[in-house]
Amino acid sequence: MSGTLYGLGLGPGDPELLTLKAHRLISQAKVIAYPAPDSGESFARSIVAGYIPEGVREIPIVIPMRSERFPAQEVYDAAAEDIASVLETGQDVIVLCEGDPFFYGSFMYLFSRLADRFPTEVVPGVSSLGAVTAAAGLPLIARDEVLTVLPATLPAPELEAQVRKSNAVAIMKLGRQFAKVRSLLEGLGLADRAVFVSHASLPEQMACPLAEAPETAPYFSMVVVPGRDAHV
Amino acid sequence: MSGTLYGLGLGPGDPELLTLKAHRLISQAKVIAYPAPDSGESFARSIVAGYIPEGVREIPIVIPMRSERFPAQEVYDAAAEDIASVLETGQDVIVLCEGDPFFYGSFMYLFSRLADRFPTEVVPGVSSLGAVTAAAGLPLIARDEVLTVLPATLPAPELEAQVRKSNAVAIMKLGRQFAKVRSLLEGLGLADRAVFVSHASLPEQMACPLAEAPETAPYFSMVVVPGRDAHV
Repeated sequence: MSGTLYGLGLGPGDPELLTLKAHRLISQAKVIAYPAPDSGESFARSIVAGYIPEGVREIPIVIPMRSERFPAQEVYDAAAEDIASVLETGQDVIVLCEGDPFFYGSFMYLFSRLADRFPTEVVPGVSSLGAVTAAAGLPLIARDEVLTVLPATLPAPELEAQVRKSNAVAIMKLGRQFAKVRSLLEGLGLADRAVFVSHASLPEQMACPLAEAPETAPYFSMVVVPGRDAHV
Repeated sequence: MSGTLYGLGLGPGDPELLTLKAHRLISQAKVIAYPAPDSGESFARSIVAGYIPEGVREIPIVIPMRSERFPAQEVYDAAAEDIASVLETGQDVIVLCEGDPFFYGSFMYLFSRLADRFPTEVVPGVSSLGAVTAAAGLPLIARDEVLTVLPATLPAPELEAQVRKSNAVAIMKLGRQFAKVRSLLEGLGLADRAVFVSHASLPEQMACPLAEAPETAPYFSMVVVPGRDAHV
């Protein structure tokens, strides 16, 4: 009997936004794996640092900083083999995932390599989207409205076309794309409805109208334009 | 000092998908409010029935069954006044919300009536979208993909246009709209990629390829078409 691969959604960053199920699985874990930068702390691990039992075996998946935007496949090839060798002994492996594992999560790189070989369970978590709209203090969508979730990395004309045909919009992964997104929303007359949120649910959380946002934005920040129906 | 109005996301239905924060707030609650049908059990209340302490004051917001798709505003006018009278005494009120309060949630009807008069906090929850993709066992979006969330109640031509310009799609609130959605996705050649999920995270959960879905679908069911990039 092989072990089970768990993709565990940890939520947006506040350790109290973990689900009871994720908390239980971490409390009982023997082996955990998580993405980590080549220097500094793993964000996913930091969310649950207070819940990890002593003596757990840890498999950091070190993602080297590089110029390409997507991680090298070789890193995940190697990590998948490490994890597979544990699963083959019958031991479960808990993969720690920021937010929700299937919502732009790097868990997919392990899922695509291992889910056809081992029993796999995904535990959904509070997504960054939910945390951002809670921080913004505005209902995102209601009734018959359409929501479009957009990565800021798309070309401006495509972003604009997508924004025009939606009632509500969330633009993610701002980082170096922020100036482009801001001028696009200003040009569409949406600057007064749009809200900028960074570090949602964390102590350094910031939420403000787009017009008052700082010049630069971290990668983990978002702009949301809530639908109009949600305010009746 | 008035009390605080809490919009508490409870997640999709599995009581273990409650967040630690929601669990703490319910455990300490003195007054809770929740939507309820005019006969039968409140779904929101049923999720947390095991966590509600004894002696809590309960304010059911009874939504009469009717032919219109959206609830009568008078119901929320009256509920808001009931809740306001509690908040004015300095007591907090916890409003129980299925899923995430700001993601198509009925909490917006109370939020729009009370948030400018009382301190208000929204606690995000695991959304139905996260639970459905976990149940489907497929990553929803990755990399630079665009996700569109659509209510099945939109007219077919609008649904089709929205599906055509997205990488990944979630079509919610199927119910009586299911036949329309199914034939639309079949017509677009997406029936092999689409997954039907009902009662996500509950014991009666069902997930299958759209082609194998039952003839009829409950209101709380969804079809998702995952993006292609999530499978590399």
